[in-house]
Amino acid sequence: MLQVSIKKGREKRIRGFHPWVYRNDILSFSRRPKPGELCIVRDHKGAFLAKGYINPDSYISIRILTYRKDEPIDYEFFRRRVEEAYSYRQQIVPENCSAFRLIHSEADYLPGLIVDYYSGYLVVQVTTLGMEALKEKVVRALVDVVKPKGVYEKSTVPARELEGLQMVEQPLYGDIPERVVITENGIKFNVQIVGGQKTGYFLDQRENKLLFAKEFVKEGDRVLDAFCHLGGFGIHALVLGKAGEVVAVDSSQLALDLAKENARLNGVEDRFKTVKGDAFKVLKEMQLSGEKFDAIVIDPPAFAKSKKVLEQAKRGYKELFLRGIKMLKPGGSLVVCSCSHHVTPPILEEILLSAAYDTRTPLRVLYTTYQAKDHPFVLQIPESRYLKCIFAKTFPQEV
Amino acid sequence: MLQVSIKKGREKRIRGFHPWVYRNDILSFSRRPKPGELCIVRDHKGAFLAKGYINPDSYISIRILTYRKDEPIDYEFFRRRVEEAYSYRQQIVPENCSAFRLIHSEADYLPGLIVDYYSGYLVVQVTTLGMEALKEKVVRALVDVVKPKGVYEKSTVPARELEGLQMVEQPLYGDIPERVVITENGIKFNVQIVGGQKTGYFLDQRENKLLFAKEFVKEGDRVLDAFCHLGGFGIHALVLGKAGEVVAVDSSQLALDLAKENARLNGVEDRFKTVKGDAFKVLKEMQLSGEKFDAIVIDPPAFAKSKKVLEQAKRGYKELFLRGIKMLKPGGSLVVCSCSHHVTPPILEEILLSAAYDTRTPLRVLYTTYQAKDHPFVLQIPESRYLKCIFAKTFPQEV
Repeated sequence: MLQVSIKKGREKRIRGFHPWVYRNDILSFSRRPKPGELCIVRDHKGAFLAKGYINPDSYISIRILTYRKDEPIDYEFFRRRVEEAYSYRQQIVPENCSAFRLIHSEADYLPGLIVDYYSGYLVVQVTTLGMEALKEKVVRALVDVVKPKGVYEKSTVPARELEGLQMVEQPLYGDIPERVVITENGIKFNVQIVGGQKTGYFLDQRENKLLFAKEFVKEGDRVLDAFCHLGGFGIHALVLGKAGEVVAVDSSQLALDLAKENARLNGVEDRFKTVKGDAFKVLKEMQLSGEKFDAIVIDPPAFAKSKKVLEQAKRGYKELFLRGIKMLKPGGSLVVCSCSHHVTPPILEEILLSAAYDTRTPLRVLYTTYQAKDHPFVLQIPESRYLKCIFAKTFPQEV
Repeated sequence: MLQVSIKKGREKRIRGFHPWVYRNDILSFSRRPKPGELCIVRDHKGAFLAKGYINPDSYISIRILTYRKDEPIDYEFFRRRVEEAYSYRQQIVPENCSAFRLIHSEADYLPGLIVDYYSGYLVVQVTTLGMEALKEKVVRALVDVVKPKGVYEKSTVPARELEGLQMVEQPLYGDIPERVVITENGIKFNVQIVGGQKTGYFLDQRENKLLFAKEFVKEGDRVLDAFCHLGGFGIHALVLGKAGEVVAVDSSQLALDLAKENARLNGVEDRFKTVKGDAFKVLKEMQLSGEKFDAIVIDPPAFAKSKKVLEQAKRGYKELFLRGIKMLKPGGSLVVCSCSHHVTPPILEEILLSAAYDTRTPLRVLYTTYQAKDHPFVLQIPESRYLKCIFAKTFPQEV
């Protein structure tokens, strides 16, 4: 197997269970590496550190699969990894949820692999050349451990092209329906398996949607769901929070149509109102026309995809938070989210504080939360925490 | 009323609802201030900012009571504040909890005042000269709004001496029992009203104890409760988590006796084992003798009471976390807490990461939480967030 030595000092991160070897960490190769092949990582003195796969052209050149010297990367390896991941999800995903993320790439020490479980079906996404080469073993392990009705590959992320891979969408095992219905906190949602965005649904807000509906929405409340996508927060507010009306805003007509269908599926379509448009513009118009809400969720897509655009992203978040605060009734609830890794929890708090300052609004912060537990945050991998939500309330009286 | 002007630029913090004017913020007084009297705070041009009370000798010279120009500091003012605080607690404290913090000082915009509610009785703590002067109005408002069976003052914090006040413990209203039984998440605990530590009980871990027992303890588990005090985490683990055995460590025999009594009160005394001693030493001995646990809570007192001792405190936390990690069974649960404001969430994570590095233990972080919601964190008052807990699990297999 290819042997890769890394520079002195760089072994610390690897010994600390961070799963990436950067191109400029590398000292030497035992021979010319083939893109995607397995390799052994050693420190500058030759001591074993880890095994992984390599793409020498990539900035992240090696992604680590195991830190165990005695562990071959074979079917049994994937079977153990999948068993552990599945057993963890069985511990943490409640019974009234029929969908969860089964494999979350690096955070399950299976870099380049995402697997979502939707009511008995698996949707697989392979994002790297190294994992592509191992796909057959992975799928066999998934089938043997989870015993799904079908496995569908939806490797349609642009990142694949950077690895020299084509986008691909195909059945891999069993029968694949175009759509399935999942339950999330006991609420029904349609998931588009064939076609559709991402692997079909955003599962990472499951716990936050439940918390919102249970503790931040009262019977009869008027709720704003900005960037609603498939209506997750809003429909939770209607079904579990008994909200009086939800106004759901999204720029995609397709998303709004699916959201409306989801509302119908749960019998709350008469209280689910949609507004198509850019949330920046829609929230501005609503605020200027004096609209008021008891609870507001702002869950935008990642504005800050890189550190470079962080300042611009902060201005974007702040504008949205300002609009939200201005439309809140006294004692109202505000939930703000960011799914950009670069917007750390202290940065998100700082943006919200700045908006609170400008609007002279004291805020009680009741929770700061992260992505659902089936999208694990491994302490050793800071990149594995990406979603943050702040749950706040305004004071009912002026202080 | 005394008028206090503050320096140019310093008004920003006050306009942003931070409730403190520092001694070196002050530009001028309209006359010589009397310690403890009410005052109006103005910016350097004379514009109204807030009303508060002053202790000119104190580093925090003015603590603000209201930002409203039209609001006199009278009985009605305290009544409104108490009503709002009580109404907020009624929203957020579950029915199976008969005790909560009713007034959390600055975080309820009533600086210098702590009020805890224990099964119908109120325990009041006054920490400043300014609040001492207003105490009669405060107590009247508390009695009128909450209608308690009794109000007991337990102003026994050393901070009072800095304000020129004596320690005092006395009944203020109604009949006062020596002890009451409270329910916390449906579990019974004795609270020592007369005498005893603090206001009688630590209420700020209520939500964390519930989360620990529900999601981090399995039936039959062996649990370590380090710095157990009255046994809160351990007894929750036994009653709600069905733990097989709890080993509770504390240096105070009094605390351990009360903890044992609490265990008896809930019928779990046969599974509640206590060890008296310095937790640093006890955990070291346990670890060296090879003891293992399924779940470990480490909830030390504030090591870092000031920024100066932060580095030393970090070493203390790390030593405890190292011991904890080494005693965990594979797949075990670790909960680490810090109640020092100076140990920010990123610092606590950094300490835990360092201990995880040294022990070569990858950790999944499932939650990062704060003090219970009845001890509010106001975004504008960073000092109002003090307690942080990280809930983690080790991987069941070597990665």
